[in-house]
Amino acid sequence: MADQLKSRRVILKEYVEGYPTEEHMELLPAADVDVGEAASAAEGSVLVKNLYLSCDPYMRPKMSRPLGQSSYTSAFVPGSAITGYGVSQVVRSSLPALAPGDLVRGITGWEDYSVIKPPFTGLLAKIRPDHGVPLSYYTGILGMPGLTAYVGFHHICSPKAGETVFVSAASGAVGQLVGQFARLAGCRVVGSAGSDEKVELLKTKFGFHDAFNYKTEDGDLAGALKRRFPEGIDVYFENVGGKMLEAVLLNMKTHGRIAVCGLISQYNLTPGEKESGAGVRNLECLVTKRIRMQGFIEPDHKHVYPEYEAWVVPHIKDGRVVYVEDVAEGLEAAPRALIGLFHGRNVGKQVVSIAATQA
Amino acid sequence: MADQLKSRRVILKEYVEGYPTEEHMELLPAADVDVGEAASAAEGSVLVKNLYLSCDPYMRPKMSRPLGQSSYTSAFVPGSAITGYGVSQVVRSSLPALAPGDLVRGITGWEDYSVIKPPFTGLLAKIRPDHGVPLSYYTGILGMPGLTAYVGFHHICSPKAGETVFVSAASGAVGQLVGQFARLAGCRVVGSAGSDEKVELLKTKFGFHDAFNYKTEDGDLAGALKRRFPEGIDVYFENVGGKMLEAVLLNMKTHGRIAVCGLISQYNLTPGEKESGAGVRNLECLVTKRIRMQGFIEPDHKHVYPEYEAWVVPHIKDGRVVYVEDVAEGLEAAPRALIGLFHGRNVGKQVVSIAATQA
Repeated sequence: MADQLKSRRVILKEYVEGYPTEEHMELLPAADVDVGEAASAAEGSVLVKNLYLSCDPYMRPKMSRPLGQSSYTSAFVPGSAITGYGVSQVVRSSLPALAPGDLVRGITGWEDYSVIKPPFTGLLAKIRPDHGVPLSYYTGILGMPGLTAYVGFHHICSPKAGETVFVSAASGAVGQLVGQFARLAGCRVVGSAGSDEKVELLKTKFGFHDAFNYKTEDGDLAGALKRRFPEGIDVYFENVGGKMLEAVLLNMKTHGRIAVCGLISQYNLTPGEKESGAGVRNLECLVTKRIRMQGFIEPDHKHVYPEYEAWVVPHIKDGRVVYVEDVAEGLEAAPRALIGLFHGRNVGKQVVSIAATQA
Repeated sequence: MADQLKSRRVILKEYVEGYPTEEHMELLPAADVDVGEAASAAEGSVLVKNLYLSCDPYMRPKMSRPLGQSSYTSAFVPGSAITGYGVSQVVRSSLPALAPGDLVRGITGWEDYSVIKPPFTGLLAKIRPDHGVPLSYYTGILGMPGLTAYVGFHHICSPKAGETVFVSAASGAVGQLVGQFARLAGCRVVGSAGSDEKVELLKTKFGFHDAFNYKTEDGDLAGALKRRFPEGIDVYFENVGGKMLEAVLLNMKTHGRIAVCGLISQYNLTPGEKESGAGVRNLECLVTKRIRMQGFIEPDHKHVYPEYEAWVVPHIKDGRVVYVEDVAEGLEAAPRALIGLFHGRNVGKQVVSIAATQA
């Protein structure tokens, strides 16, 4: 292997207001990656070849100019490679726990090769080859979205068998799993999505008891929910926010629980739209119905991963839990794939395949 | 005692949109109260003479036309006496647990005498005369607001010594207690109120570490909080909602907790104002900061009252906890007193004194 490898990368060109477009990103041609740096034990860094990149909604807020507010995740740096979850193969390693050829999941760059430095090396987790599941699953059901669905549903929502569950953005990377986990927990689960194709997928592939297209019910989301939950909603897994949350609040049962995973309806509002827009206007339902609403993020719950993995892998193998991915091919396809998330173009978990493993 | 007593009553004349006025209520002249009815064991009812009536913010939503939504409390009935918490003395009783002369707290009518029927008889609690505190306190610190403050702060907010606490509507029936309970728990507590007089009371009488007048900081509530909580807010006791909640969300710490007790800023909005108004537009803070927001009402926690009473009475007696009341005199003053709550005219807990005890 040469000391210099050639690596293309996708950078954020400038901070985004409103919806991101392909113009906000750029694929830069191949430049040298310094393998020597990755071999330095003092640095503690690892050189990886990236195989799969994950497109996730949380990446949108990182594309906005930082407001100086504390957040669990910092903004992207214009001119630098976009970063996100991925599956990679180790090329050179200065860490004893990782050897060339090892497959890892973690935070990597949107580039052919990445030099991963501390503290991100601490997030690299070796993939167990004996699971025999597609490698791309480690950006989804066996990655951040999977643990998000598990922790959010089982730990944050405290579901009981027989309860009713509603999931928005239900065909996405997280939602499709929440629906299946709810069904396995003995709940009655309904999902919403943005196309008839997705609604069909929810009902036929993921086993949601019912589902609807929010775009064709837009005039009366509260009514759409009321018809499907005549007795009300015990648990809401929130991925959307805005008008959907208002409609859900009207339909929640007393002592209901809302796990706030994300608010994708809010991410692409310009500051002006956000300022002038309608926020959530019926939070008094929290009091009258004694609702618990709890935000959470997966990084706080990493310690649950072994429990989750041990639980979900047998379910994957025997087909009780399925996972649908939308795979874009090639690093050059990554910007469009990410943008597509915010227009609902993806069907299932959006992932980008950029290279094959090397023996 | 005659079989018929004369009783005046305050009725709601019609459902209210926007701010209530005295025109929405009416004091009806004395009419006979049927003592015979109250003496019927089959009925299980109790005749009481009302001594103190409580004015509480939750009464405003009960003045609006019901929307068919489930709520823990039903709307008032136009033409009938307004109901609410009160302190009363038993005149005749068909219940073995209550005898004439007993002092009780519970839900009663805005009238000189009330016939209390099941299920409301089940809410009547005898007042222990050995406490030696003012009877009016049983509408406040030893009534619903007191237990609300205790449960909301200690049970819902899970406070730890050294944490920072913010209380809005902090000089009110509940807020003044939350501030004192927070101080006793070793927290640093800041309150907001709507006049300089109230702010002074918070700092000098209730021992808040700091306080501010939200009306004179209106342009920048977030900044007002930032200056007082440079490291952020761990616990927010929410009585207000709207713009105050938005400002608080910006200033919450990671893993902060919000107990939602009430949203008084929302209660007097007309349906049109509510529809066109700005709701809460930054709920994404719930995710980025992993905030738990929990609505609660006191009736769910009645079983905690003995624990609370045993804890708070010694604090009252030794002066570690004080209570400020705003006492209006006479049933005829009740409508104006209730309305005053929504304009912040009350200083401390608003109560109406309508009669003295009889030996």
